Amino acid sequence: MKVLRLHAAGDLRLQNEPVPEPAEGEALLRVTAVGVCGSDLHWFSESGIGDARLEQPLVLGHEFAAVRVDNGQRVAVDPAIACGRCEFCLQGHPNLCPQVRFAGHGQVDGALREVLPWPVALLHPLPDALSDADGAMLEPLGVALHAVDLGHLRLGMRVGVFGCGPIGLLIVQLARLSGAVQIIATDPLPHRLEAARECGAMHLIQANHGAEAPDVWDAATRRGVDVAFEVAGENAAVETAVHAAKPGGLVVLVGIPADDRTSFSAAAARRKGLTLRLCRRMKHTYPRAIALVEGGLVDVHSLVTHRFPLEQAQRAFETAGRREGVKVMLEI
Amino acid sequence: MKVLRLHAAGDLRLQNEPVPEPAEGEALLRVTAVGVCGSDLHWFSESGIGDARLEQPLVLGHEFAAVRVDNGQRVAVDPAIACGRCEFCLQGHPNLCPQVRFAGHGQVDGALREVLPWPVALLHPLPDALSDADGAMLEPLGVALHAVDLGHLRLGMRVGVFGCGPIGLLIVQLARLSGAVQIIATDPLPHRLEAARECGAMHLIQANHGAEAPDVWDAATRRGVDVAFEVAGENAAVETAVHAAKPGGLVVLVGIPADDRTSFSAAAARRKGLTLRLCRRMKHTYPRAIALVEGGLVDVHSLVTHRFPLEQAQRAFETAGRREGVKVMLEI
Amino acid sequence: MKVLRLHAAGDLRLQNEPVPEPAEGEALLRVTAVGVCGSDLHWFSESGIGDARLEQPLVLGHEFAAVRVDNGQRVAVDPAIACGRCEFCLQGHPNLCPQVRFAGHGQVDGALREVLPWPVALLHPLPDALSDADGAMLEPLGVALHAVDLGHLRLGMRVGVFGCGPIGLLIVQLARLSGAVQIIATDPLPHRLEAARECGAMHLIQANHGAEAPDVWDAATRRGVDVAFEVAGENAAVETAVHAAKPGGLVVLVGIPADDRTSFSAAAARRKGLTLRLCRRMKHTYPRAIALVEGGLVDVHSLVTHRFPLEQAQRAFETAGRREGVKVMLEI
Amino acid sequence: MKVLRLHAAGDLRLQNEPVPEPAEGEALLRVTAVGVCGSDLHWFSESGIGDARLEQPLVLGHEFAAVRVDNGQRVAVDPAIACGRCEFCLQGHPNLCPQVRFAGHGQVDGALREVLPWPVALLHPLPDALSDADGAMLEPLGVALHAVDLGHLRLGMRVGVFGCGPIGLLIVQLARLSGAVQIIATDPLPHRLEAARECGAMHLIQANHGAEAPDVWDAATRRGVDVAFEVAGENAAVETAVHAAKPGGLVVLVGIPADDRTSFSAAAARRKGLTLRLCRRMKHTYPRAIALVEGGLVDVHSLVTHRFPLEQAQRAFETAGRREGVKVMLEI
Repeated sequence: MKVLRLHAAGDLRLQNEPVPEPAEGEALLRVTAVGVCGSDLHWFSESGIGDARLEQPLVLGHEFAAVRVDNGQRVAVDPAIACGRCEFCLQGHPNLCPQVRFAGHGQVDGALREVLPWPVALLHPLPDALSDADGAMLEPLGVALHAVDLGHLRLGMRVGVFGCGPIGLLIVQLARLSGAVQIIATDPLPHRLEAARECGAMHLIQANHGAEAPDVWDAATRRGVDVAFEVAGENAAVETAVHAAKPGGLVVLVGIPADDRTSFSAAAARRKGLTLRLCRRMKHTYPRAIALVEGGLVDVHSLVTHRFPLEQAQRAFETAGRREGVKVMLEI
Repeated sequence: MKVLRLHAAGDLRLQNEPVPEPAEGEALLRVTAVGVCGSDLHWFSESGIGDARLEQPLVLGHEFAAVRVDNGQRVAVDPAIACGRCEFCLQGHPNLCPQVRFAGHGQVDGALREVLPWPVALLHPLPDALSDADGAMLEPLGVALHAVDLGHLRLGMRVGVFGCGPIGLLIVQLARLSGAVQIIATDPLPHRLEAARECGAMHLIQANHGAEAPDVWDAATRRGVDVAFEVAGENAAVETAVHAAKPGGLVVLVGIPADDRTSFSAAAARRKGLTLRLCRRMKHTYPRAIALVEGGLVDVHSLVTHRFPLEQAQRAFETAGRREGVKVMLEI
Repeated sequence: MKVLRLHAAGDLRLQNEPVPEPAEGEALLRVTAVGVCGSDLHWFSESGIGDARLEQPLVLGHEFAAVRVDNGQRVAVDPAIACGRCEFCLQGHPNLCPQVRFAGHGQVDGALREVLPWPVALLHPLPDALSDADGAMLEPLGVALHAVDLGHLRLGMRVGVFGCGPIGLLIVQLARLSGAVQIIATDPLPHRLEAARECGAMHLIQANHGAEAPDVWDAATRRGVDVAFEVAGENAAVETAVHAAKPGGLVVLVGIPADDRTSFSAAAARRKGLTLRLCRRMKHTYPRAIALVEGGLVDVHSLVTHRFPLEQAQRAFETAGRREGVKVMLEI
Repeated sequence: MKVLRLHAAGDLRLQNEPVPEPAEGEALLRVTAVGVCGSDLHWFSESGIGDARLEQPLVLGHEFAAVRVDNGQRVAVDPAIACGRCEFCLQGHPNLCPQVRFAGHGQVDGALREVLPWPVALLHPLPDALSDADGAMLEPLGVALHAVDLGHLRLGMRVGVFGCGPIGLLIVQLARLSGAVQIIATDPLPHRLEAARECGAMHLIQANHGAEAPDVWDAATRRGVDVAFEVAGENAAVETAVHAAKPGGLVVLVGIPADDRTSFSAAAARRKGLTLRLCRRMKHTYPRAIALVEGGLVDVHSLVTHRFPLEQAQRAFETAGRREGVKVMLEI
């Protein structure tokens, strides 16, 4: 079978490998669609992400849909294999499992290959209404859903979304779906702000390394937003979120931090009595995400702006790296 | 000025009275629209409600909009005057204030008159986009909003609404607005089920003194709903709600109980580890309710199915009493 | 090995049976101490509990400590075998698992025998500081701990505990340990009130089928308690709890209801905007319960007032049935 | 009357001034005891705190007890005058009121004088069991209580307290009172660690600019604490708290930040999915704080290690500035 393996920064190789055997509790999957995520781009361009480094050639890809080889069922696939036995797993927080293994990360090969084995318990049957690419989009949608769960949105709230990549745009959609009456979105890229408008944002402000914070405060009628989502992974966006939140407000940090440290204005945050929540992946989101897409409440389809076959993976990664469009999808 | 006073069960008299003087902190209001609520009907038909009895001729009406005489501003009016000093008020729960005085209840005259004085702090300016009748509908919308707040709805939930009077219908709308993927609604009256469908309910089941409970369970795919709203004020609906809730589910009791006691199947509720919340009016809902209607997210307009001038109040009360249509509005 | 089997109401037989084989994932345990619970008494005296009936001779006993045969380790044993795969288990609520199997209930033989096999994942090593009887008491302590978790006690609260059997007494201890400044306890039996005083209750009121409710309200300085625990399993106690709660208060229903239906005063509960939570067993309590006993923060030792060998099980059940003392323990 | 006024950094002057007139809703108080707080020390040594600067000679002092001149009642005094009308006040969060005026801060003279007028609504009668100094200690106790409220402590938790000044020590006491089974405390000063031990801390680790973080992690058995309180106001303590928290844990930032920015290790905090809460003063704590001290559950008395008359204020401030003992109290 064909496998796309990262050997070094920028060095993706499409090679032939034998089809692996599924272990106990696993099924063999034929991959159909794989989204390119920002973390894949980190691996691709820097041969690592955060404090993880490429130790051996790695198959990337963790946003994916597939077909089960044994019974032909189309499935969305949860890319995180939690241990199931630690206190965090038992208490219902597999996203906090310290022993988690994650597709396309470290030593666990991901989905950019024709066939892979995966635990049956992590497969979620796809209804006919969802395409394969829709199925792959359930992973970023799950991340967005978990972030919005942490935000405890209530009807009639004012919301800020700082960063409009695919997950930021999904958070905009979900905030709208949660009955927000005001959604302020920022991003440095005009085409992403335009996408935010289509997703339901009412105020669009171009981000400029944090210099936009006063405009955001004005847009929030100098009262502040109830919940501020930071989805840029940059410290300037964290600072904008802290600045934008109302007294007693909630700041949800979704972005994967590019810097080693997160910092914010201490006196302002304290005077407002803010709460900051840091998102760690997601939990229990697949069934709800599927129902939301199937019911037409969330549109993941429009976010897929580029599609490539596996053979053009290099081009796909470069396109995603230039931040053209929104989501780049590989179809196998 | 003209005043509509209830002298005994069924005995409403339109009489002339002098215009009252506003006390300190009050403004004089010219009433424009008053909705007829189920509790008004209790007073009208039974000369009391719960353990309160008619002690003196009473002006009914607590769902209302008005115009300030002093500055011409159109306002929605919060009908509950909390003391502002007890521990419940200070902790942000004016709806739990034991000293609360309520328009059209006990010894506090309500809004079915041309002019009334009311505390300025309870007046909420109406945007142009809201009609007077819309303004009067903000009171039942606030009740529904508070109930949904207590329900802690999250995206992708399954919801049951048992009872489709005006507040039940608004809860259906708000559940839809909260991203519910399944809404099951029951009511004995076919035209209210039809209204529920228009508000966003997906499963409609005719209520029949609780005999519908198994059908509700089937509609909830024998898994149960995440949140069950009881909005009928009848014990059969409470029992249906308890039956319909999933293990760990939440039952929100919104209906004003017609019976002296509320009872439910103890073993089933305990085995499922349910939580029951009883709604007491509302708190801090006007600004959010106004924003939701102004933003087009909630439709209160369609729920007003009958309109009468003050002179035809008797007919209005009789129409409401027959449960024709949804909301009967008096326009002054 | 010796096994104590219930063949019909009142008919306990000590018989010889072969030692069972442990299944995969199970260890063989030598039972050391088994507490007699109120639910055991229901089986003993009525050959059933709730809607469950004795279908075949059953070994009772679910509050127990044991020694692992394979490695000699002393353990406390979680008596509930949840499926581990349903949405409730995965989300961290094994106590809500619809497929749960429970020791000494239905078709699952319990601990009143010399040896039994049990899943290793449900065994919690006992520190030296805890005796075998202490280990058996961790089960009712876990129930009490779960109830107090549901009560969300904060420092400085006023608490009511209505019913002072072993679990009620443990809740009194835990309320004291949670920094409650007032604890009102009721029970019909004077020796249990005396035990409540020793556990930390400050106001003791003899229960009399609900007639004590006004005295409870007075003791709560006519303001009401923040959290009311019903631990009697009787409707009069539910009503007292509803009556005793403050506006916005919380009522935790811990008792296993003796009646088919739970009922309460609807108007009062609604006017106060109460929340009622029904307890279903416990979750994730063993490690914390062990730490609390080991640290000397909770005293389970004093609650064990009677001890019998397995051979005197009949006498043990009769003693417990007469509600003498507090907890009857069988030592094997 | 005698008034102690700060004219510039280090320049405290005891001067004679006329007794002020109480405004409407105010009572005249004869001050009896005033604690010296860390924020007073900032004003004293730097003629400002955070972004506030000394604009005019200021009377410091906000931890105080007094006697009402009109009726002789001994009272503890809430030093924060919230507006009572903004959305934050109305929703029960006076600590978040943007218009709050605070004793001994900015242009609002505080308690270091013989007589001052103060709003009657902010006076809390002192039971006989509490001394005047105890009454003054209710203010820092309220801050600690609010922090512990934000920490949502449950029975059997593991807790870290990083910084053992008066508020840190009170948090240690309150954590113990909340049934914590492990309390790890750090401070650079040995006598404060010793005080922490007396308050109930079980693990004491000397702080050393954050180098102690690995020892804290070891003390938390490399599993992490459930709740970490930062009470040092230094970034190293924030970082230690983030490091010490378990996955899914809660970090409560109580200390007033000495630096302009708060920063923490982004990747670690995110991987653990932490929640950070920033404390802003307190709300609704006086009645509970009084009950806790009156009931003997909290010991504020031992924390008062130094007492001076008003005439020796300079010496009192210098003693507090050297961080001798724990709390310095001025008695008038």
